[in-house]
Amino acid sequence: MKYGIAIFPSKKVQDEANSYRKRYDPHYALIPPHITMKEAFEADEDEIESKIIPELKKIADETEPFSYGVYKVSSFSPVTNTIYLKVDPSEEIFALNEKLHSGSLPGDKDYAFVPHITIAQKLYDDEFSDVFGSLSMLKFDLQDNVDRFQLLYQLENGAWSVYETFRLGGE
Amino acid sequence: MKYGIAIFPSKKVQDEANSYRKRYDPHYALIPPHITMKEAFEADEDEIESKIIPELKKIADETEPFSYGVYKVSSFSPVTNTIYLKVDPSEEIFALNEKLHSGSLPGDKDYAFVPHITIAQKLYDDEFSDVFGSLSMLKFDLQDNVDRFQLLYQLENGAWSVYETFRLGGE
Repeated sequence: MKYGIAIFPSKKVQDEANSYRKRYDPHYALIPPHITMKEAFEADEDEIESKIIPELKKIADETEPFSYGVYKVSSFSPVTNTIYLKVDPSEEIFALNEKLHSGSLPGDKDYAFVPHITIAQKLYDDEFSDVFGSLSMLKFDLQDNVDRFQLLYQLENGAWSVYETFRLGGE
Repeated sequence: MKYGIAIFPSKKVQDEANSYRKRYDPHYALIPPHITMKEAFEADEDEIESKIIPELKKIADETEPFSYGVYKVSSFSPVTNTIYLKVDPSEEIFALNEKLHSGSLPGDKDYAFVPHITIAQKLYDDEFSDVFGSLSMLKFDLQDNVDRFQLLYQLENGAWSVYETFRLGGE
């Protein structure tokens, strides 16, 4: 089964992201707006229960809640034409990402972590230029708190279903 | 904010339900296949954190994991033309539903609880007759375990985002 780990922003930020995703992101219906903390990895249910969830609990316990800001739109162009709300980099989110790729947790970190909330992807080149041209002019002033992350699994139709919530800082 | 409580079946059952929802359920993209345990209710975030989540934790701790079977399709017709996978009634699921409507938890129970996984809704009358005519011939033999329920909130676009997972039987 394919699993992934994400942070879901507050309703306010999700609603903002969805106002763009609705038009520009074909994954709009597959998962709510999110910050991917760990890309999709393969694991079986036994491994998830016996090994991965205890490890994620430990990481969550050791991580204090933190906040982040969103101020602008950016893009992965020319690598891909994905457009995203840029999550202002903070030590905390990098540290959490690092922990989620350490120890015995499966899944490689193939590239540098750029915390982001995707709002457009898989656009045609012309469309990308137009859309990014206008979105990149936008200024945001969103502040959001992270007090949990979620383990998800992917269904056959490509949609993601939340399996477990991990609260930061223990309880 | 609008909250609700649901059980998400295993991937196997979700995939089965989605094979019908894709064609017949306009809510297909708003939430994965689920058993609604508590209909949408209004609450503010403070109340959720200070009162409702502790109460849900207590309920989850006191409830042992249980299993259920799905053997056939049924419908709420003529009240609504919703078609669903019938969750074979069990004491455990009724007891959990009862607990989720007790104590100081908000939200009324407006009608008798019929545990189900919706696979079609908002069909035109003609379409309903056709679709239900063929789906009601189907026989299933699905067994599934419930070891958690989830608290969700609704986004402005109607989609549901998981806020917290509650494991049954404590940990």
